[in-house]
Amino acid sequence: MNKILRVNMSKLKAKVSDAPEKYKHMGGRWLTDYIVCDEVDPLCNPIGPNNKVVFAPGIVTGTSAPSSGRLSVGGKSPLTGGIKEANAGTPFSQKLARLGYKAVVVEGQSKEKKYWLLKIDKDGAKFHPADEWVGKGLYEVFPLLFKKYGKDVGISAIGTAGERLLSSAGVCFNDIDNRPSRYAGRGGLGAVLGSKGLKFIVVDDKGAKGVDIVDHDAFKKGTAKLTEALTTHDITKPGGALNKYGTAVLVNIMNEAGGYPTRNFREGRFEGAAATSGEAILDICNERGGVGKTGHSCHPGCIIQCSNVYPRPDGTEHVSCLEYESDWAFGANCGIDDLDTIAELIWLSNDYGIDTIEAGGTIAVAMEAGLADFGDGPKAIELMEEIGKGTPLGHVLGSGAATTGEVFGVVRVPGVKGQNMPAYAPRAVKGIGVVYATSTMGADHTSGYTIAPEILGVGGEVDPLDADKAALARGFQEATAFIDATGYCLFIAFAVLDIPEGWEGTVESCNGVLGTDWTTDDIARIGREILDKELAFNKAAGFTKVHDRLPEFMKYEKLPPHNMVFDVPDEELDKVHGG
Amino acid sequence: MNKILRVNMSKLKAKVSDAPEKYKHMGGRWLTDYIVCDEVDPLCNPIGPNNKVVFAPGIVTGTSAPSSGRLSVGGKSPLTGGIKEANAGTPFSQKLARLGYKAVVVEGQSKEKKYWLLKIDKDGAKFHPADEWVGKGLYEVFPLLFKKYGKDVGISAIGTAGERLLSSAGVCFNDIDNRPSRYAGRGGLGAVLGSKGLKFIVVDDKGAKGVDIVDHDAFKKGTAKLTEALTTHDITKPGGALNKYGTAVLVNIMNEAGGYPTRNFREGRFEGAAATSGEAILDICNERGGVGKTGHSCHPGCIIQCSNVYPRPDGTEHVSCLEYESDWAFGANCGIDDLDTIAELIWLSNDYGIDTIEAGGTIAVAMEAGLADFGDGPKAIELMEEIGKGTPLGHVLGSGAATTGEVFGVVRVPGVKGQNMPAYAPRAVKGIGVVYATSTMGADHTSGYTIAPEILGVGGEVDPLDADKAALARGFQEATAFIDATGYCLFIAFAVLDIPEGWEGTVESCNGVLGTDWTTDDIARIGREILDKELAFNKAAGFTKVHDRLPEFMKYEKLPPHNMVFDVPDEELDKVHGG
Repeated sequence: MNKILRVNMSKLKAKVSDAPEKYKHMGGRWLTDYIVCDEVDPLCNPIGPNNKVVFAPGIVTGTSAPSSGRLSVGGKSPLTGGIKEANAGTPFSQKLARLGYKAVVVEGQSKEKKYWLLKIDKDGAKFHPADEWVGKGLYEVFPLLFKKYGKDVGISAIGTAGERLLSSAGVCFNDIDNRPSRYAGRGGLGAVLGSKGLKFIVVDDKGAKGVDIVDHDAFKKGTAKLTEALTTHDITKPGGALNKYGTAVLVNIMNEAGGYPTRNFREGRFEGAAATSGEAILDICNERGGVGKTGHSCHPGCIIQCSNVYPRPDGTEHVSCLEYESDWAFGANCGIDDLDTIAELIWLSNDYGIDTIEAGGTIAVAMEAGLADFGDGPKAIELMEEIGKGTPLGHVLGSGAATTGEVFGVVRVPGVKGQNMPAYAPRAVKGIGVVYATSTMGADHTSGYTIAPEILGVGGEVDPLDADKAALARGFQEATAFIDATGYCLFIAFAVLDIPEGWEGTVESCNGVLGTDWTTDDIARIGREILDKELAFNKAAGFTKVHDRLPEFMKYEKLPPHNMVFDVPDEELDKVHGG
Repeated sequence: MNKILRVNMSKLKAKVSDAPEKYKHMGGRWLTDYIVCDEVDPLCNPIGPNNKVVFAPGIVTGTSAPSSGRLSVGGKSPLTGGIKEANAGTPFSQKLARLGYKAVVVEGQSKEKKYWLLKIDKDGAKFHPADEWVGKGLYEVFPLLFKKYGKDVGISAIGTAGERLLSSAGVCFNDIDNRPSRYAGRGGLGAVLGSKGLKFIVVDDKGAKGVDIVDHDAFKKGTAKLTEALTTHDITKPGGALNKYGTAVLVNIMNEAGGYPTRNFREGRFEGAAATSGEAILDICNERGGVGKTGHSCHPGCIIQCSNVYPRPDGTEHVSCLEYESDWAFGANCGIDDLDTIAELIWLSNDYGIDTIEAGGTIAVAMEAGLADFGDGPKAIELMEEIGKGTPLGHVLGSGAATTGEVFGVVRVPGVKGQNMPAYAPRAVKGIGVVYATSTMGADHTSGYTIAPEILGVGGEVDPLDADKAALARGFQEATAFIDATGYCLFIAFAVLDIPEGWEGTVESCNGVLGTDWTTDDIARIGREILDKELAFNKAAGFTKVHDRLPEFMKYEKLPPHNMVFDVPDEELDKVHGG
């Protein structure tokens, strides 16, 4: 796996070359960061001709390593104005890796506002007109594409949100059953692809050589250790918490902790939590019968299998998947306690090609502005449909919560660096607040999931209300950056934080693929290198320490039930990345 | 003139106190800057409870000094996120000064979304409910207010744009004939007043003591020198260029220079320039008869009198005034060559309480996005009316060009720090581009009017296409900051740049009022002090050198007819404020 595919949308040329030596050991977020930093002017307009989008499978992606089908997508974010890496678990990533591609770099812009499909297979890459699919929902388009290109291809797509250059447009990938449902969602990279005119990438790995493994023995030993950890830890094992209930198992836990953001972060506890919890989802799947199920996976080879298929009352499929973040974004955060409504809002997001976290946060801010009442599900669906119709209001909502707040004069906008917060309340769980503030990505729980020790007792136990969290936030961000380079799902962290052999196996499996001799001591080093690269980009893009702050209202408005403000001192925030 | 009126909108209390000693010699922009920097957290939400709005007449405002009726309005800008000073010429300022007020500081926020009118007179300040005027156009409201409070009061107001917290809402003041037409327009301070619930300030100076003058002799000598300069310089004298044609005398000049931004800064020359020039305005006034006239003034005691009253075809009043920036913003920048359409767009802006420069720039960006064709006047009027109706589209457009560009995916957005550029093309006039880039205010020609030497041969002659402009931009910004402290109209610069005695007179008249012994050597010192204060606020608000840049497209897109990009090196830009 040592090739780079460079896709020039201005010239409609795709060129394969060997990866430069310096990229040799990089994968995933590590590699997208380096290519973006090496090639993209931090001051370029994100939807202008000089931004790029980089796709990179992780180091072990495409191998038999468990839960390793992640793909990183990088570029300058239209939402934050900083560097962005968003990743998804999808067969697309595994196929790209097996064809030997370390990265696909999309640059330039299609002339005349035309859209293209890029077909990648063992013989190279070719452009096909995609205009016939423009303006359509992805649930309509995906089956047609799979019919045309075969059910075993992988597909990357943007929806109408990306075509309209909306800042919360995500990059969509097929799941294990070829739904348009796996998203590198955050930060608007779908709009960047839209600005370039690249609507789809279809990857066919028929006849692919697969991923080169330098040291098979190390690889085998490493994956065995990791597999052992994943299959024994209570959270990640088959039949464990994530597998049985899906990620929404967290709903009741976060609600109990008073850190479940409710009605646009006005409160930390939602009266509709139980009705929208993972337990409720499992009950509904069981009651309604039909195709509904938990224990679904986003890509082949996953042990954790935390996805689900949510059924309609008649047992037919409504949406996959209804996971914790989307559940919360359209649920508690909008005051909506009805899973069927939430399922519909997720389905619409997937159909339009938009990030569910940003979309839910945006509807909550729109509710704050008086465009709908909190808890009004039908009106929330109407607001989402404005995005699909491309009305002026839809353009606003598709531009994210910060822009919606600005347009409608809302002060309570719970974002950092222009990106809305995910499903953990920083005033009740201070460490995640420190991560939101200091992440290079804008407010992002996947930058450093301190919820593990703060709430779940994983990787130690830490008081969530304690404000002394710089070291914790730093450590988690470094470890996460490393995991995002490997291609492993971040959820392996639950197991490996508690089981040291799991961490060893993670590193050793990378050594197996690359021929390196990293130890677990290298995790923080590599993670730091990745973060420093991102920080350098952001600094050149105009970010300072001042941008590593939570919104002002969280410093003067107390969040029930703990009735605390966000009281982590600025000095503590500034310690996270040093300097 | 040594009192400060502190207006607390949370408690509905207005309190008079003596100005602290350190503010003793300050006025206008100098004073609003200091109070904002001393009292406002640079990271506060501009429309949240912790921002403030400061009104301050200039040092000599309220005296008999010529052309000195300016009022500075300061606060944290919702448009730029940085410090803002916007100023207007209005009798309101003179009345406030004569009542002895150095500044009015508006803080806190009205509860329950109610609006208030603050009446200030010699006996103090009192609140009156203003809800009956909410939601109405200012052309309807102003006559009613003058009827109620007497024709000799001064009025400050926000319109529906400010009520809706739109980021391009200005602060409106009455002109000499009590129209709602003089604006501290830029940067959205009208939205800040809206967020506080302060809709009007009515100032009645009946029985006022007037402005204290410490050294009458110095004052008299100074004003005589300045008067002499103003009445002899070709640009400022009675019957001179500004007096005869109004500021739109610049249209043909800038067009000839190839620096007249046309169709959203796509071109530097407009085929409709002559039809929309100052000369055309004078012709129309003469042809149509009735109330139309040039040589109108915004406040009593002005020598320059550059304002006008633009008539309808039947000779009745359409709007006052139709000046260069508004003419251009709705004219060339939107490709519109019809003065009656432009007049209507200005009237709507005044009626809604919105900055014409930002509004015109926004319509141009909306045209870029395909919401109307360039040159389509009726459609431009429809777009403006959306702002008046408060539709979602109106909210977008009222939020300014940058937000409109973001919402509709436009790359060609000609702004700096979120504020759209005024009527000079930086690729054809490099010095003004350097000012746009480095101004603390966002793109702003009134921060440093290098057009004087670059185009008009005033204050020397400089090649507009030369890129070596740091020293020029610095000098002009310093001198301007000083003038903005004095209360003199910036247009005195035309005279005093060429006539050294005019500069002396400017300084000496300030000495007369204050009892200071400044010389012309102090101009740059005081200007620098003002700018450094603003830079410090902006730095604390998150601005870096990186924000002192023109938009990327101006670096790769050539502007006809000179076919040049903006080629001033970043290093040259960084020299302006040193460091």
